[in-house]
Amino acid sequence: MSKPLDYENLNENVKKCQYAVRGELYLRASELQKEGKKIIFTNVGNPHALGQKPLTFPRQVIALCQAPFLLDDPNVGLVFPSDTIARAKHYLSLTSGGLGAYSDSRGVPGIRKEVAEFIERRDGYPSDPELIFLTDGASKGVMQILNATIRGDRDGILVPVPQYPLYSATISLLGGSLIPYYLEETANWGLDIVNLRQSVAQARSQGITVRAMVIINPGNPTGQCLSIANLKEVLQFCYQNNLVLLGDEVYQQNIYQDERPFISARKVLMDMGGPISKELQLVSFHTVSKGYWGECGQRGGYFEMTNISPKTVEEIYKVASISLSPNVPGQIFLGLMVNPPKPGDISYERFVRESKGILESLRKRAQIMTDGFNSCRNVVCNFTEGAMYSFPQIRLPPKAIEAAKKAGKVPDVFYCLKLLEATGISTVPGSGFGQKDGVFHLRTTILPAEEDMPAIMASFKKFNDEFMEQYEDYRGYSRM
Amino acid sequence: MSKPLDYENLNENVKKCQYAVRGELYLRASELQKEGKKIIFTNVGNPHALGQKPLTFPRQVIALCQAPFLLDDPNVGLVFPSDTIARAKHYLSLTSGGLGAYSDSRGVPGIRKEVAEFIERRDGYPSDPELIFLTDGASKGVMQILNATIRGDRDGILVPVPQYPLYSATISLLGGSLIPYYLEETANWGLDIVNLRQSVAQARSQGITVRAMVIINPGNPTGQCLSIANLKEVLQFCYQNNLVLLGDEVYQQNIYQDERPFISARKVLMDMGGPISKELQLVSFHTVSKGYWGECGQRGGYFEMTNISPKTVEEIYKVASISLSPNVPGQIFLGLMVNPPKPGDISYERFVRESKGILESLRKRAQIMTDGFNSCRNVVCNFTEGAMYSFPQIRLPPKAIEAAKKAGKVPDVFYCLKLLEATGISTVPGSGFGQKDGVFHLRTTILPAEEDMPAIMASFKKFNDEFMEQYEDYRGYSRM
Repeated sequence: MSKPLDYENLNENVKKCQYAVRGELYLRASELQKEGKKIIFTNVGNPHALGQKPLTFPRQVIALCQAPFLLDDPNVGLVFPSDTIARAKHYLSLTSGGLGAYSDSRGVPGIRKEVAEFIERRDGYPSDPELIFLTDGASKGVMQILNATIRGDRDGILVPVPQYPLYSATISLLGGSLIPYYLEETANWGLDIVNLRQSVAQARSQGITVRAMVIINPGNPTGQCLSIANLKEVLQFCYQNNLVLLGDEVYQQNIYQDERPFISARKVLMDMGGPISKELQLVSFHTVSKGYWGECGQRGGYFEMTNISPKTVEEIYKVASISLSPNVPGQIFLGLMVNPPKPGDISYERFVRESKGILESLRKRAQIMTDGFNSCRNVVCNFTEGAMYSFPQIRLPPKAIEAAKKAGKVPDVFYCLKLLEATGISTVPGSGFGQKDGVFHLRTTILPAEEDMPAIMASFKKFNDEFMEQYEDYRGYSRM
Repeated sequence: MSKPLDYENLNENVKKCQYAVRGELYLRASELQKEGKKIIFTNVGNPHALGQKPLTFPRQVIALCQAPFLLDDPNVGLVFPSDTIARAKHYLSLTSGGLGAYSDSRGVPGIRKEVAEFIERRDGYPSDPELIFLTDGASKGVMQILNATIRGDRDGILVPVPQYPLYSATISLLGGSLIPYYLEETANWGLDIVNLRQSVAQARSQGITVRAMVIINPGNPTGQCLSIANLKEVLQFCYQNNLVLLGDEVYQQNIYQDERPFISARKVLMDMGGPISKELQLVSFHTVSKGYWGECGQRGGYFEMTNISPKTVEEIYKVASISLSPNVPGQIFLGLMVNPPKPGDISYERFVRESKGILESLRKRAQIMTDGFNSCRNVVCNFTEGAMYSFPQIRLPPKAIEAAKKAGKVPDVFYCLKLLEATGISTVPGSGFGQKDGVFHLRTTILPAEEDMPAIMASFKKFNDEFMEQYEDYRGYSRM
């Protein structure tokens, strides 16, 4: 007799969901690593794993918060600058019981206040700490909001394609319907409102109630920064169609061009004024895992709700309470991120030097990578305007597609596996993010160390060009 | 027109779930605190919030892991003992990228190995690190396993009543059915197999497929420690009824008597031998939040799976991957908990002194509290054999029940609110955990400081005895 937790008896939604960022490619890469092969893990935006050093200041503050007895140690000043000591005392005074005590399930009130002040400075509009919840990373927040939203398989969530698979996986897990809208690769992954309208119309014709729309800005995996005009269109569209907008803005510090700085959906909404600014429901997400912080392992994030009623906020609070509280050190990281050292502080110069160094290097790496991909046979790649990823299109020759079929693999999985075996570069196939039929991509982070980048791109080019050589059939391909 | 995240449009399962530990009483207590009233928060097992000091050794190690640049600082030895430096290096070497990098979604492999070694030392049977997942506290692990188990409202989970509301809330959230089985207050909250059989038979007669059984050992809120004989019966029962057993063993370090030491469900299962030991599916949970650690805010926990097939483990791994990784500092706390200082280590004596001090004081507090409750009019209370709670029965006079009805409150909520207003003691009414009809309780932690305990119990007694005086009707009450 089969047992309750045997595969065939599991929750179908669990079985259905897919999460490619740690899927077949990652598992194979982990195996190869165990066998002693050198793997370059570019499957996930995990900067410290690829050698990025943590910023010194926040780590000093957290170390002191973890070891509050050091604050009374006569030698503490030999090891920690005085402003980190003051900051540690500040954050400890905001908690009730230090880092070892559960906080309120929404997060430490004093840190939520600091987040609200940061948002106000950033956007020029006041923000209410009561509408800000701290979370164990942004993903957990997204899951909480989707859980409150999705009532069953007739509830649809508009998700960009290509998308970050957190969305597809969570929607599957919660038994909802994903409604794709396509980003335009030829328009630098811009968002086309006509396409959006078609997606909604088609979903409705199938009896789906479209409830929410997700935007990822800057884009993951696509790297584009949305323009103000585009954001306005999106907000209008959500308003007209009675959708809550989920604004995934975790890459807001990661901008690699000057034409389109990051602008929050909330700021654009407030700038619009009128009824829409008072009525449109918006939830915005941010994190300590990205930017020049890259503190993924600490699991700190927040979401801010706009135009959401107190009764709903209470329900979300109640559900957050079931897991008691987000981790407190991660909350303090978030406090430090929204409230970094100021000019005049002892740690200010070092902090600026370190953070600028990281961002400038990422900008260079984005360029090296895009140029590298565009120098390869049958590869075209938009410039990474923001975020941490490059998403080149790989024009696979028909013979390669046939070979993939024979091997029982999706064509881009086939390509990425070959790449992994040949070079140790662990990417994620485009099919994990969604793409138009017959078009293939891969996602890689731009995170390998700057000095390693030329060798990695050379190794990629060698593999790719040989792969194309092997499978290309000029007659067949020229007809595509 | 109502908007997508307005209350009436939310997921019904979100609205249905209840979490009393942070429910009406907690919210009212928070209000009173804001107004300046001194509140004693005994609603949640949160030792550091009530003044318990963190153990020094693990905090030193974590501080160094957060600030790895200190390891090269010539002054580090002035502030940190050498064994904490060695341990920090050890844990950093187990990670790939330190505390700022996502780990594998199951947790850092080297720490999972340390957990397996701890289980083997504890139980005398080998444990497989591949079947151990690290989590952001035990609650998150329970939610993951229930999510894999529950397929719909016809799937039932056996839960003790009284129970810790994590279970009822999660089952509601996932749309499953809670099947209660009653613990016997007159038998010191023992588990009666006859009662269990009746619960299952009744659920089946209603078309429910009973899939899993939860035990909490030591008990929350009831404080009992299950005997080996009782655990054997439970395991046999699960085997006969094809149930997976979820063993919530987060209080395994919190034992306040010598007759019944903690024994894990896994050890009893392995000791039984034969087919049951190779077939019965068991998932066991543990945490850094309880015991003498009490590191709730760090969110570290694990679950260990026994007799679960690799295909199911893969599915659980996939879902864990969606939120990328548990927080890494919490994982290191767990490593330290299962691998504390050894005799001969510089930090050993201090560690033993601190941890013994905490446990011995908890034992005294358990006794003071039980005796205190039993000295009150119309209050009877079993001794807290383990865990962190006291769960006295409050025999409410009919007039009090009537007064509650008039106030629109459940009787024990009425009593607990009055207690809160009069004394500042913030408890959780028994109705939040489940209790037999017409019987009333409250739950309080045994965590207030030992020196404050006599005053708290005196304040409780004064309130209670006056309350009883006010509402008691001898004729009415003597008939009960």
